[in-house]
Amino acid sequence: MIRVTVWNEYIHEVEEPFVAQVYPGGIHEVLRRLLEDVDFEITTSYLRKDEYQGLSPELLKNTDVLLWWSHCANDELSDDTAARVAERVRSGMGYIVLHAGRNSKPFKLMMGTRCSAVWRDWNERTFVWNTCPSHPIAAGVPEVFELEGEEMYGEYFDIPRPDDVVFVSWFAGGNVFRGGVTFTYGQGKIFYFHPGHERCRSLYHENVIKILKNAVCWAKPVPAKNIDGGVFAPPLTEIADHENRT
Amino acid sequence: MIRVTVWNEYIHEVEEPFVAQVYPGGIHEVLRRLLEDVDFEITTSYLRKDEYQGLSPELLKNTDVLLWWSHCANDELSDDTAARVAERVRSGMGYIVLHAGRNSKPFKLMMGTRCSAVWRDWNERTFVWNTCPSHPIAAGVPEVFELEGEEMYGEYFDIPRPDDVVFVSWFAGGNVFRGGVTFTYGQGKIFYFHPGHERCRSLYHENVIKILKNAVCWAKPVPAKNIDGGVFAPPLTEIADHENRT
Amino acid sequence: MIRVTVWNEYIHEVEEPFVAQVYPGGIHEVLRRLLEDVDFEITTSYLRKDEYQGLSPELLKNTDVLLWWSHCANDELSDDTAARVAERVRSGMGYIVLHAGRNSKPFKLMMGTRCSAVWRDWNERTFVWNTCPSHPIAAGVPEVFELEGEEMYGEYFDIPRPDDVVFVSWFAGGNVFRGGVTFTYGQGKIFYFHPGHERCRSLYHENVIKILKNAVCWAKPVPAKNIDGGVFAPPLTEIADHENRT
Amino acid sequence: MIRVTVWNEYIHEVEEPFVAQVYPGGIHEVLRRLLEDVDFEITTSYLRKDEYQGLSPELLKNTDVLLWWSHCANDELSDDTAARVAERVRSGMGYIVLHAGRNSKPFKLMMGTRCSAVWRDWNERTFVWNTCPSHPIAAGVPEVFELEGEEMYGEYFDIPRPDDVVFVSWFAGGNVFRGGVTFTYGQGKIFYFHPGHERCRSLYHENVIKILKNAVCWAKPVPAKNIDGGVFAPPLTEIADHENRT
Repeated sequence: MIRVTVWNEYIHEVEEPFVAQVYPGGIHEVLRRLLEDVDFEITTSYLRKDEYQGLSPELLKNTDVLLWWSHCANDELSDDTAARVAERVRSGMGYIVLHAGRNSKPFKLMMGTRCSAVWRDWNERTFVWNTCPSHPIAAGVPEVFELEGEEMYGEYFDIPRPDDVVFVSWFAGGNVFRGGVTFTYGQGKIFYFHPGHERCRSLYHENVIKILKNAVCWAKPVPAKNIDGGVFAPPLTEIADHENRT
Repeated sequence: MIRVTVWNEYIHEVEEPFVAQVYPGGIHEVLRRLLEDVDFEITTSYLRKDEYQGLSPELLKNTDVLLWWSHCANDELSDDTAARVAERVRSGMGYIVLHAGRNSKPFKLMMGTRCSAVWRDWNERTFVWNTCPSHPIAAGVPEVFELEGEEMYGEYFDIPRPDDVVFVSWFAGGNVFRGGVTFTYGQGKIFYFHPGHERCRSLYHENVIKILKNAVCWAKPVPAKNIDGGVFAPPLTEIADHENRT
Repeated sequence: MIRVTVWNEYIHEVEEPFVAQVYPGGIHEVLRRLLEDVDFEITTSYLRKDEYQGLSPELLKNTDVLLWWSHCANDELSDDTAARVAERVRSGMGYIVLHAGRNSKPFKLMMGTRCSAVWRDWNERTFVWNTCPSHPIAAGVPEVFELEGEEMYGEYFDIPRPDDVVFVSWFAGGNVFRGGVTFTYGQGKIFYFHPGHERCRSLYHENVIKILKNAVCWAKPVPAKNIDGGVFAPPLTEIADHENRT
Repeated sequence: MIRVTVWNEYIHEVEEPFVAQVYPGGIHEVLRRLLEDVDFEITTSYLRKDEYQGLSPELLKNTDVLLWWSHCANDELSDDTAARVAERVRSGMGYIVLHAGRNSKPFKLMMGTRCSAVWRDWNERTFVWNTCPSHPIAAGVPEVFELEGEEMYGEYFDIPRPDDVVFVSWFAGGNVFRGGVTFTYGQGKIFYFHPGHERCRSLYHENVIKILKNAVCWAKPVPAKNIDGGVFAPPLTEIADHENRT
């Protein structure tokens, strides 16, 4: 059983009727329904839910994989919340970031880079190409699939070198984007995936859902073990002729 | 001509007579002399030098490669200085970090992880193994060389997956360490190398100096170009049948 | 259910009484018993079993993960058998290679390099360090464990850059070795792990068995999909103003 | 001074008048002229030049970086020539492979994979995106540039995980391609770059030439050192309590 928390900014859906129609109840509730799986125990939360911005220590502690959507209010998230998320990923929680979540404080904190990219707010023809068919996240995903219009995100994408570039997207306007990339962060696994503009229906796409389900399984924590460096380590074997060294 | 700035914390040498004997004038002055090269224009600086902690905007702007040594006063460095260093690396400056500089704010900021490791403060027998002989940083470096005693740094080293693991060190006490690793950060290149405890003479070692000189040449900026994402991008080609998309 | 085939050279055990005592019935039979798992369906095979050198098309076709041990007879394996193994890995079969299997034809064929390393045939004190605690192969494995004596394999290990360096081993004689490394090969996953000299008892070690079980789960094929390149691809979208191009 | 050998199949130019017009004297002679540089000493050669298929031991021995173009006669190259090229790269020679050279025996031998991709023989609109602006090969190359028509090569590209994906190409027909990728092979560096169909003028493009010149400088050998594994290694330090081990 994987404990999944779907965290959503949940502002566009409240303030924009068009978005509310595309994602009734909010992206988090739509994803909760679409990701339903016998192996997943799904909780939803959102930015303005409580004093912890929807991510209480208790909830984070009991989350195996955190699925993240944010966009217009990336600045509203506190540095403290960002730090608590990063700390939890460092200790093993999986972290799946959608769309504009690349600009969220926790993601930028963990990447260390700006995570900037070029963009075009247009309902643009998009093909998602599978460039790492052996990756568990790509299980059952065809060589290529089309998104029924998406916001263009394009290179240069200012991220560290990814562990794997699982998907590369093509946009009709002439751009390409390393839109599905994985990273390791301490004991945690991170997957960034570009689809999910609030006005597009990409999150309903069968292959997007398949990819997110695969990503949840891939990102689940491995049994925790002590990797706390920064401590004094007694030698495992007597140190050879150290007296010659001092 | 590569403009190299050797930045040193410069506190141990001032406060500890033994260290002052090992590195007279400070590690920065010793390295300035040892790294002397017809292709390098070397400047030195240190933490308590001025209001900019020795890293004025002017100096950073005119630095191609920054060589960094710090240890006991990593907390004294301000977040602002750390951010200015990271921003400069992001725009192309090379960054070479020695020894306990792995715990410095700029390095941790750019890595995104804790950069923790196990350690043993002992003048310990150390072998540095060359695990990437094709790397420019390893040019002319033998398959293995011995350090005349060094502080042990050992795994688990909490860093992102390196671009290249150029050197792995062996310690008599039973530890191993990915002690020479490279990273990409925006347009900048980073090399971390573990030798250089203030009470050890590792920085005088011919192969350590050869490696640092190689690293300076490898890390020099590539001609700057605009990679500023986060901006609107006009389409390069008319967007195919977008009307079907809205 | 994962269909695992344990393939063993099975010559040392037949010709050397001491080895027969260490691994009664052969390494393949010992591993079959030790790897027993409710999720595994284990078959064993060996070099001189049949005209297919123990790897008939039928068996390969029905193998999800192939576990490989070989040493003194690496040259006896035919190029044809090596090519059939590589082809099967390319199409998704997992491939786990132990000890001197690094010198086997299939492994060298898939790596493209010599896979050479320095070695010392000595029952030598060995520590295996976990350098990638977030990797599924490292699940439940402590930060370090000791092997009760093993043949030394050391750097430089002539392999391509691994996907992950999961384990690095320390040897009392002064060597280090990237002894647990993963690779991607077409749709297949590869894990090389250095323990397993025929005269050492490493393969009985609880952590070695845990690692091999983890590796089998990690290496199981992802659902096959067509990645057959080398074919003509019709355009997915009408090609913009190609007439201006000819 | 870098000793560059430009090796070309040189058959299309001989047999097809149209190609002879595009590349008078052959692609090798055109590249010799375009790559002219004060730091390069350029030799040209071709498949049917001599008994060594234009790659005599003497020439290979005196080549620092080999630039390779081949297409229709990839099968005509002997396994022996392929092995000699691979051996030379393994010992440090740089290897730059253009266009259909991805299907050449030496490249496939070194990659270990099929190197297959989808293709469309069409003079197709192509944008080359710079996805690794910090890489020396990308020095001075803009964020994106257009090729005046090129054959489409597309994903899935069956190669090992590259060290760096320096360029990703966009094709009007809807495909993307990791068209500029680097690899490490023993002590040698490899760069594959997709432009250069014999009927297209891509190799005259200012940015393509800039990239090839950068690649030559990047790929030049680092000073040779002994990395010959496969040999017995005497211990560097007396082996601790081995008597307890035997």
